[in-house]
Amino acid sequence: MKRIGVLLSGCGVYDGSEIHEAVITLLALDRSGAQSICMAPDIEQYHVMNHLTGEATDEKRNVLVESARIARGKIKDIRTVTANDLDGLILPGGVGAVKNLSNFAIKGKDANVNSEVSRLVKEMIAAEKPVGAMCISPAVLAKILEDKKPEVTIGNDFGTAETIEAMGGAHTACPVDRIHVDHVNKLITTPAYMIGPGIKDIARGIEKLVDEVLKQA
Amino acid sequence: MKRIGVLLSGCGVYDGSEIHEAVITLLALDRSGAQSICMAPDIEQYHVMNHLTGEATDEKRNVLVESARIARGKIKDIRTVTANDLDGLILPGGVGAVKNLSNFAIKGKDANVNSEVSRLVKEMIAAEKPVGAMCISPAVLAKILEDKKPEVTIGNDFGTAETIEAMGGAHTACPVDRIHVDHVNKLITTPAYMIGPGIKDIARGIEKLVDEVLKQA
Repeated sequence: MKRIGVLLSGCGVYDGSEIHEAVITLLALDRSGAQSICMAPDIEQYHVMNHLTGEATDEKRNVLVESARIARGKIKDIRTVTANDLDGLILPGGVGAVKNLSNFAIKGKDANVNSEVSRLVKEMIAAEKPVGAMCISPAVLAKILEDKKPEVTIGNDFGTAETIEAMGGAHTACPVDRIHVDHVNKLITTPAYMIGPGIKDIARGIEKLVDEVLKQA
Repeated sequence: MKRIGVLLSGCGVYDGSEIHEAVITLLALDRSGAQSICMAPDIEQYHVMNHLTGEATDEKRNVLVESARIARGKIKDIRTVTANDLDGLILPGGVGAVKNLSNFAIKGKDANVNSEVSRLVKEMIAAEKPVGAMCISPAVLAKILEDKKPEVTIGNDFGTAETIEAMGGAHTACPVDRIHVDHVNKLITTPAYMIGPGIKDIARGIEKLVDEVLKQA
């Protein structure tokens, strides 16, 4: 049974992991006979958004604790996970990827990435194990791997694509029902809700991503 | 396009809607060409559970605001929805169904149900429109419709089944990949995570539930 890490960043599109993307990933992995190993960093969220009004609140929440909602409590602190524990790794999207796992949303090409996230992704690449990322998360991969000429897609958002290229990556436009594969670095990416428009549309790309990660794992 | 209400109760299995069940419902509806109309009551949660440790916290959260995380912000206050707006209604499970939408988890057969939840379900039944429920939510339907001899399943949990029968309902045991249909009241129910064991297993029953709700809608 292949062991695939699912790296979460909270629970909710505007301040954590995009919930639909995360759940569709877990469903596709289970249907393919793979084992999902959910994980997240034990850090405070950058902020907590009211998802009804779209406004920031003054609440404090923890990324690992909130991610546990998606994982039904079965989740590891990323500090305890190494590439030896995994055959592949997948990063769902959501604003948490660029505000909790990194600060790409604030600092763009000069972003800092959480040290444990960076460590685990680099270990996976060094071990030649596949890493999948969707929605805005490919930008985090591009930052971590900026000296590896990573090839990714985040769909067709010009500004984000330009920033990825400014970090030394290569961006390829891609529709929501397709994936882009970097065969050198073993990166598999799909636009998901960077394009949308709906849950059935993003599911098509995510299912292809999961298939390809498992094929390369 | 059929309009199917998805009644949420928060965001997380231990204090709100079970996230996998809710997302699989939304995915199956979209794939079948139906429109999902997410809704929740604008009330405080019974409690907020830390999903990592399983312990209650002293936080306060609002059911509508947290449900908006699953709905990506596109959600209605249940007070603004009537049976005229819907062709069918589905209740995902999770502890929120029996602590936020009702207090079945605390009071059993003497449970009180949120007045708006009760109103909408009764309107749907009066209009002969189908209502689906999964996991523990069929117990809420059984309480609301206690004078209608509702037939439901919550899987095979003896205590819950006995309480449903004590309220005047009929309980039928059912495996996770099947549904039970009450043709008189147009109730479609499936055990989901009351049985589990995994996301691919619950998805089979939920997809059948969505198909049957749409067939009867």
